[in-house]
Amino acid sequence: MSPSPIKYYYDLMSQPSRALFIIFRLSGMPFEDCVVALRNGEHLTDDFKRDINRFQRVPCINDNGNKLAESVAILRYLSAKGKIPEHLYPKYFVDQSRVDEFLEWHHISLRLTCAMYFRTVWLDPLLTGRTPTEAKIEMMRMHMERNLDVVEEVWLESSDFLTGSTLCVADIFAACEIEQTRMADYDVRIKYPKIRAWLKRVRQSCNPHYDVAHKFVYQISGTGPQAKL
Amino acid sequence: MSPSPIKYYYDLMSQPSRALFIIFRLSGMPFEDCVVALRNGEHLTDDFKRDINRFQRVPCINDNGNKLAESVAILRYLSAKGKIPEHLYPKYFVDQSRVDEFLEWHHISLRLTCAMYFRTVWLDPLLTGRTPTEAKIEMMRMHMERNLDVVEEVWLESSDFLTGSTLCVADIFAACEIEQTRMADYDVRIKYPKIRAWLKRVRQSCNPHYDVAHKFVYQISGTGPQAKL
Repeated sequence: MSPSPIKYYYDLMSQPSRALFIIFRLSGMPFEDCVVALRNGEHLTDDFKRDINRFQRVPCINDNGNKLAESVAILRYLSAKGKIPEHLYPKYFVDQSRVDEFLEWHHISLRLTCAMYFRTVWLDPLLTGRTPTEAKIEMMRMHMERNLDVVEEVWLESSDFLTGSTLCVADIFAACEIEQTRMADYDVRIKYPKIRAWLKRVRQSCNPHYDVAHKFVYQISGTGPQAKL
Repeated sequence: MSPSPIKYYYDLMSQPSRALFIIFRLSGMPFEDCVVALRNGEHLTDDFKRDINRFQRVPCINDNGNKLAESVAILRYLSAKGKIPEHLYPKYFVDQSRVDEFLEWHHISLRLTCAMYFRTVWLDPLLTGRTPTEAKIEMMRMHMERNLDVVEEVWLESSDFLTGSTLCVADIFAACEIEQTRMADYDVRIKYPKIRAWLKRVRQSCNPHYDVAHKFVYQISGTGPQAKL
């Protein structure tokens, strides 16, 4: 009996969920769609904790009984299984280290600050009914832009994509974080011409999967992909 | 001509710097000691940015001209070069994925919240002369303890070390983050008996390198390792 396809637990409202969704689709890897509605707290049940992910988060996978969480760990596991093409995540360790450098850098810099901005401006007011102060929004924007500056000036200094001349998983993870800020009405294109042009290239390289993954982002931000990019 | 040893740029006041220092020493990997005094802003110069690390952080390495930043990316690169023994970072991809799951989880959970607590209680008052409010300290402690709870109840649920029955790099990275909170007078042992016993095991498994790496932590917190553990 051939093994079942990997079960992929995700919600397209989550940035790393979108990133892995795009990567799996681009890789042509079959997976079983297991959508988890975070907004309904489906990840917070005891069943979810016991059977799906003890950390009660998405994304996560179940590969014929082997449960694994954390998007970058999942990516590396599936790459080792030969499911992710080499142009998206290199196998040669020197090239791989350049991509890993970004994937490790982005957690507490780009990812954290984009997520905090989104949460402050969009999510918290929705959940609590309270509007954040202008000073708080300004501080969150400053933290985020400090990292967007690094993307614009360092990562994109002299190349079309973050770690070289072609698309890889680093670009997909980064783009999914930055796109999230659209929902909080932030338009990254205004201050950042290199990021603007790079986002276009990432979307083109990933479509049609990019637009599928971002359908709720486009819908909630009230702008189609064309209008924004 | 044989290649030069890897240049390792670090400051023992930085948690991931200490983690890599312990890992390199345990691995018996020769490296050239390149101490960077963060307190003197040695990482903020244009020379450092151009010649050592474009992100102006430590730790980072230079391996015969190949510059690499981000502690986890450095670890993987050196593992691929055969410099890190398999018991510290597994080579079999399924075992490796368990360690990666921790390394990716810890960034915006354990690492971030321990660092924010330390910064709020110890570093910011030192730099600005202002004392944080009790409410702020309480909030930071709550965020940190939410993640210490996960270490105690999930990661250490049924094993002596975070990802199995023996020490690996995950334990070293985690211990270095948790030890940092000593300097802010936080005693993790009070609420967390499993973490207490695990920290003892980690220290024993890593010594004498653990105590060397933590010499400033012990000194600043005013407690020797014996007094604390």
